Amino acid sequence: MDKFEKEIKREFQLERMILFSDAVFAIAITLLVIEIKVPHIESDINDRLVLSELLHLLPKFFGFVFSFFIIGIYWTVHHRLFSYLKNYDNKLLWLNILFLFSIALMPFTTALYSEFYQPNLHVPYMVYTVNICLTGLSSYLLVKHLADSKKNLTVGFTDRNLIGAAIAKAWMMPVIFLIGLIVSYIFPAWVGRMAPMLIPVYLWLVDKKYDMKNVKASKEKIN
Amino acid sequence: MDKFEKEIKREFQLERMILFSDAVFAIAITLLVIEIKVPHIESDINDRLVLSELLHLLPKFFGFVFSFFIIGIYWTVHHRLFSYLKNYDNKLLWLNILFLFSIALMPFTTALYSEFYQPNLHVPYMVYTVNICLTGLSSYLLVKHLADSKKNLTVGFTDRNLIGAAIAKAWMMPVIFLIGLIVSYIFPAWVGRMAPMLIPVYLWLVDKKYDMKNVKASKEKIN
Amino acid sequence: MDKFEKEIKREFQLERMILFSDAVFAIAITLLVIEIKVPHIESDINDRLVLSELLHLLPKFFGFVFSFFIIGIYWTVHHRLFSYLKNYDNKLLWLNILFLFSIALMPFTTALYSEFYQPNLHVPYMVYTVNICLTGLSSYLLVKHLADSKKNLTVGFTDRNLIGAAIAKAWMMPVIFLIGLIVSYIFPAWVGRMAPMLIPVYLWLVDKKYDMKNVKASKEKIN
Amino acid sequence: MDKFEKEIKREFQLERMILFSDAVFAIAITLLVIEIKVPHIESDINDRLVLSELLHLLPKFFGFVFSFFIIGIYWTVHHRLFSYLKNYDNKLLWLNILFLFSIALMPFTTALYSEFYQPNLHVPYMVYTVNICLTGLSSYLLVKHLADSKKNLTVGFTDRNLIGAAIAKAWMMPVIFLIGLIVSYIFPAWVGRMAPMLIPVYLWLVDKKYDMKNVKASKEKIN
Repeated sequence: MDKFEKEIKREFQLERMILFSDAVFAIAITLLVIEIKVPHIESDINDRLVLSELLHLLPKFFGFVFSFFIIGIYWTVHHRLFSYLKNYDNKLLWLNILFLFSIALMPFTTALYSEFYQPNLHVPYMVYTVNICLTGLSSYLLVKHLADSKKNLTVGFTDRNLIGAAIAKAWMMPVIFLIGLIVSYIFPAWVGRMAPMLIPVYLWLVDKKYDMKNVKASKEKIN
Repeated sequence: MDKFEKEIKREFQLERMILFSDAVFAIAITLLVIEIKVPHIESDINDRLVLSELLHLLPKFFGFVFSFFIIGIYWTVHHRLFSYLKNYDNKLLWLNILFLFSIALMPFTTALYSEFYQPNLHVPYMVYTVNICLTGLSSYLLVKHLADSKKNLTVGFTDRNLIGAAIAKAWMMPVIFLIGLIVSYIFPAWVGRMAPMLIPVYLWLVDKKYDMKNVKASKEKIN
Repeated sequence: MDKFEKEIKREFQLERMILFSDAVFAIAITLLVIEIKVPHIESDINDRLVLSELLHLLPKFFGFVFSFFIIGIYWTVHHRLFSYLKNYDNKLLWLNILFLFSIALMPFTTALYSEFYQPNLHVPYMVYTVNICLTGLSSYLLVKHLADSKKNLTVGFTDRNLIGAAIAKAWMMPVIFLIGLIVSYIFPAWVGRMAPMLIPVYLWLVDKKYDMKNVKASKEKIN
Repeated sequence: MDKFEKEIKREFQLERMILFSDAVFAIAITLLVIEIKVPHIESDINDRLVLSELLHLLPKFFGFVFSFFIIGIYWTVHHRLFSYLKNYDNKLLWLNILFLFSIALMPFTTALYSEFYQPNLHVPYMVYTVNICLTGLSSYLLVKHLADSKKNLTVGFTDRNLIGAAIAKAWMMPVIFLIGLIVSYIFPAWVGRMAPMLIPVYLWLVDKKYDMKNVKASKEKIN
């Protein structure tokens, strides 16, 4: 194999890891809906009955919508992060598998959370938070590994602000869910459940601290 | 990274979004069949009994066939629309995720619609229609975003008739299902359920209005 | 877009259709196993009990193995057939979707066939045969469409023997299952169920009639 | 088709086989989690009850984690092995399908193993071991087929130590599970269940015997 062929081969190996990840993302995101079961109505079916059964499914449905967009967020994070990749090593393969593990877990923790969505229950929300923390931790480990310039894995992923912002975003969901958990012990639980509304605030703070506008401009030149 | 490498990278990022979409399409289309459960027959199994149980599954089966081809239609729409793409931005990623959300919802709404397929029920058909409207709306937003020449996302997606026809086709299924809904309140419900038979009429009108034959000819030169 | 870019774009559109097909194949083939449910044992679990429950699952398991390799065969057929492709049209997209429809149906018909695998039942076997016939028919339509030289869809798919053998192979499984069905009405049912053992005979006859050794040799030059 | 086009086509056919495999891997690995069902609690739900129900799910959860990483291991093995590929034949397609069959089986055998995870039961562990042995056997057959220099399927997969180590690693999981099975008959069952802790020992022995450090160094030059 000459040098050019090696390059092609390595790129295909990279693409294979990425498309495998996309398949896991796609399956996890689509399996979410499987947990919403069509209600069984035995006798005297009418529109009112079907409607009332559907209203009972609403928490499950919101859980589905919510997790769909959480997985969507992490997919876009993965999509952006891996755009800097030019090489891989064994550790990267396994950190990626750890990350995918936390994504594959989501249909279960979402189903648990939305099945028992009640103001007086903390455990399902905690299990969901643990899942989110695992996803956050593995994103963080991925960012750190990619940012390690000795490994020579990326192109253009050297800017301090860019890496800082990526790390801050990896921790975004865990931080917000942990705030929600603490708040739900002090105030009524539903106040804590509002925590995801902090997402835009968090993103605004990250953008401000790491001067992301300039980073984005310079990234555009690269990407 | 030199200019050529950047180009390759951007194209791979585009392909990744597209293949991720294909995976969601493929899973949603195949999951449809999971809702058709093999009947449980406890005692005295014979051919007649199996056959009568299978006949009870027929509405579910037709629901499966119907949604399979609806998802098929939207896949071909996605396939054609994204063939003009040469670039992407964050908004496109999220409009695409919204579109995939409506596709991933289909196994559930199909199961609901076909489980309660009865002349006197309107709610399941309405839920299915809402799903179709969401798919139509997100297709429309995708077309509008791609057609926005300031964003510089496409190649060859500038012809007015081409864009007009794409928009008209995005709204096709919602329009037809809403007509069906209205008709089913005025006439017997089964008349409204025949609405999908308007598809060829609608397509013929679109082709006529936007002079698609010429557009197709010019597209062939491009594509 | 210059000519080279158009070529790249069309190839990507082709690849997209093919990878979408592969995703449907992969999901259908993996979903087969979902139908094998872990037995529920309430009390006094011991090895003997688990073993006897597993023995009850054997027909389901054989059904899974059997359909896994049937889908495997059709995947290799699709893999070979589409290797000649250099272009696509709308009809090809839809014939391919019809083909994938018959593949997506297999987890259901397999579950039905293996759930009611009893010597005195013909209906489940007939339903499975209808599924196989649909797959065969759509393969045949695909081969015919690809072989239509006016459409200019392929490279190197012009040899008469090559096309003849592809058509003969498309009909292989339907022919064998229909023979099995007829035989099972005349002789005891289990004789008819042995029909798949005719596969090597059929393949030998096809190879002989279409002089496939020479075709393969010439294909090697192309492929 | 000129020589360059043939090369491109063959590479795409190779990629298609590999991405099909990745899809099966991704589905099998994500389906594992489907077997963990959200507990149904009828009345008087409280945190303590939910927690105790979740504790009952722990064996299933560990089974999921365990099989997730087993499939992860085999994916990385497949990823590395197929990086040497430059060509394919019919036998390779079918050995790969056999390999994928054993992967697709894992959600079922994992569910069985973790549903009946009890010290006095040997059968579920044996069924799981049979699955692992099938995966090991098909990996071995793949390695042997790729290493067959007459077939001319690979680039750079000729080093004796490299091939020896690949074969030794193909048999790793079966050997370890069989040791676990034997030990669990002599000593208490839980001692045998610790067998996977031998993985690092086995890997260390393989690395030492086949002088893998040097092999890796030379591989780096190729890959």
